[in-house]
Amino acid sequence: MDIKGVEKVWKNDLTGLLNINYPIIQAPMAGGPTTSELVAAVSNAGGLGMIGAGYMSPEQLRHQIDEIRKLTDHPFGINLFVPTEYTADAGKLQAANTLLQPIKEELQVEDELVLPTFEQDLKTFQEHLNVIIEEEISICSFTFGIPSPRIVSKLKEYSIVLIGTATTVEEAVMNENAGMDAVVIQGSEAGGHRGTFNGQDRESLIGLMSLIPQVADVISIPLIAAGGIMDGRGIMAAKCLGAIGVQMGTAFLVCEESGANTLHKEAIIKASEDKVVLTKAFSGKMARGLHNRFIEMTKPYEEVLPDYPLQNELTKAIRKTSAAKGTTGHMSLWSGQSPRLAKKLTACELMNKIINEAESLHPKL
Amino acid sequence: MDIKGVEKVWKNDLTGLLNINYPIIQAPMAGGPTTSELVAAVSNAGGLGMIGAGYMSPEQLRHQIDEIRKLTDHPFGINLFVPTEYTADAGKLQAANTLLQPIKEELQVEDELVLPTFEQDLKTFQEHLNVIIEEEISICSFTFGIPSPRIVSKLKEYSIVLIGTATTVEEAVMNENAGMDAVVIQGSEAGGHRGTFNGQDRESLIGLMSLIPQVADVISIPLIAAGGIMDGRGIMAAKCLGAIGVQMGTAFLVCEESGANTLHKEAIIKASEDKVVLTKAFSGKMARGLHNRFIEMTKPYEEVLPDYPLQNELTKAIRKTSAAKGTTGHMSLWSGQSPRLAKKLTACELMNKIINEAESLHPKL
Repeated sequence: MDIKGVEKVWKNDLTGLLNINYPIIQAPMAGGPTTSELVAAVSNAGGLGMIGAGYMSPEQLRHQIDEIRKLTDHPFGINLFVPTEYTADAGKLQAANTLLQPIKEELQVEDELVLPTFEQDLKTFQEHLNVIIEEEISICSFTFGIPSPRIVSKLKEYSIVLIGTATTVEEAVMNENAGMDAVVIQGSEAGGHRGTFNGQDRESLIGLMSLIPQVADVISIPLIAAGGIMDGRGIMAAKCLGAIGVQMGTAFLVCEESGANTLHKEAIIKASEDKVVLTKAFSGKMARGLHNRFIEMTKPYEEVLPDYPLQNELTKAIRKTSAAKGTTGHMSLWSGQSPRLAKKLTACELMNKIINEAESLHPKL
Repeated sequence: MDIKGVEKVWKNDLTGLLNINYPIIQAPMAGGPTTSELVAAVSNAGGLGMIGAGYMSPEQLRHQIDEIRKLTDHPFGINLFVPTEYTADAGKLQAANTLLQPIKEELQVEDELVLPTFEQDLKTFQEHLNVIIEEEISICSFTFGIPSPRIVSKLKEYSIVLIGTATTVEEAVMNENAGMDAVVIQGSEAGGHRGTFNGQDRESLIGLMSLIPQVADVISIPLIAAGGIMDGRGIMAAKCLGAIGVQMGTAFLVCEESGANTLHKEAIIKASEDKVVLTKAFSGKMARGLHNRFIEMTKPYEEVLPDYPLQNELTKAIRKTSAAKGTTGHMSLWSGQSPRLAKKLTACELMNKIINEAESLHPKL
């Protein structure tokens, strides 16, 4: 297959590239939200549902693929976290434990901590890729980095459409050079973890109004906009700026079929845009979510916490217990910067709403 | 005059409200860029030129109004900084002087420091307002706050169109409630000083993709988008999101007629989006510009610097000397997040380019 040719044909048509009806991708939110019901509902409504497989075991992933195939005949995609090296700094781990201990005592957290290793992460990543190939998944996206040339070649042999993630022009170019078929451009507005993999987090916080056209002028693969887009206005704005489609997270996170905790959904529905902040405290990696007690308390220590994913593991039981106790104070309430636009709908109702909005917009200077 | 009625009529038409041909405002960049030639060229090309009067004396302002009137018959506007209280903390001033001393020695800066006072700022603000009334200026915008009800009433008596600045939904609502006829919504992408006046700087860094629709859903006065918009793509995107016009700074700052230092213009033309950072170091107030030595050096001390405008005065001679010596290391190189889109053009060429681009865009889902 002539990849270059395919790229040219689909440059202005995400629906053709992904075999979907509308250029709307449900963001692969790892850790619970992307239930089989949500993924299937989005794909059935003409968008692209995606599994956020980042924290899954290969068995869980295979099981979910089976489940979704019972619910839809349409394509859906899978997102993987590209493993990056990290070191377990004993001093940092000790300091983080000291910091978290009073919270654990307050919440009566029962902790059976097993720290991950880079080698284990690499093994799981390879197993996920094997599942994707064996299950003949047609679309795979990546966050936190770009897979190796060997992996890219292998996936291309199976004609799997590959989608990267970038937060700067340079990262977008790296994705194009690595052979990605399209790239998600994550603006500073985006909720959850920053996809930045090439340099400082803070310096890569570029708003979509700036980022989309600057990327569009430089790369020739299709560009998918992500960050703060919740309705037809955002989709059409992204298209004006040079994107050929959008990826929406928070909008789908609050949907009925989403597996996000009800407390999380309700907190977003009630929130305002000025209460959405950046923090490294939950995972060791910069992410955007609603301000709460845990973020406030850990703020002074953000820069001395253990690396991702170690800190993520250290706070896991705290987050889980907080949710189980019905309080949001210590949960990671990921959200983009547009919580006021969040609506309690089914995924199908949301898709219909945003498609109608987008189709009714005919902007003039 | 029935203000409410006027607001309703112009809700979807910035050109009618301001008596201009295209909904494009040249941002009132205080401190040099807004020469009479730039302001007149933008107004002559069908946009709205604006004087950034923030750092001017009343005599300078009156002189520039005379100059511009010789160059154009079209309307132009004036922007004022609303004075806010501050205290001269002796300890902070001492610490800042100690920090800046080695730089002054390196650059051989000759300093004749006279610190401003809030009372003096208030007096100048009132004198500026008198000039605006006496010179029959038809459009006046405000940054860093909202003028008092007494001032708003007074300006409305003279049918002056009043435009506020907001960085959050709450600030936009405050502007509407105070009787502003329109509001500039400053996204996190914007260059120069943050207009935030109601709370923390960092928490008000909301990208336009999120901020415009969330404001548009809540207020009923016209919304003007500002931040990272440099061409027709940005204008049409802002319109999709719910703005009725745009205010563009960096795009006009690099124009031939702009009074910005040539080194500043060239630095923007060569820059990339990931080199644009936030700093309080130049003025004591958060602002966005190109990263340089001065920002790097002062970074650890940002939170303990004297308040705006004291720190602005303390660094004034350093910035001036750096520019005079032809080095950008200690200049405030304000820029939005889209430097890659900057073009060396005349203001008229830029206006024609962006109007053509905007008119040729017909986005479809």
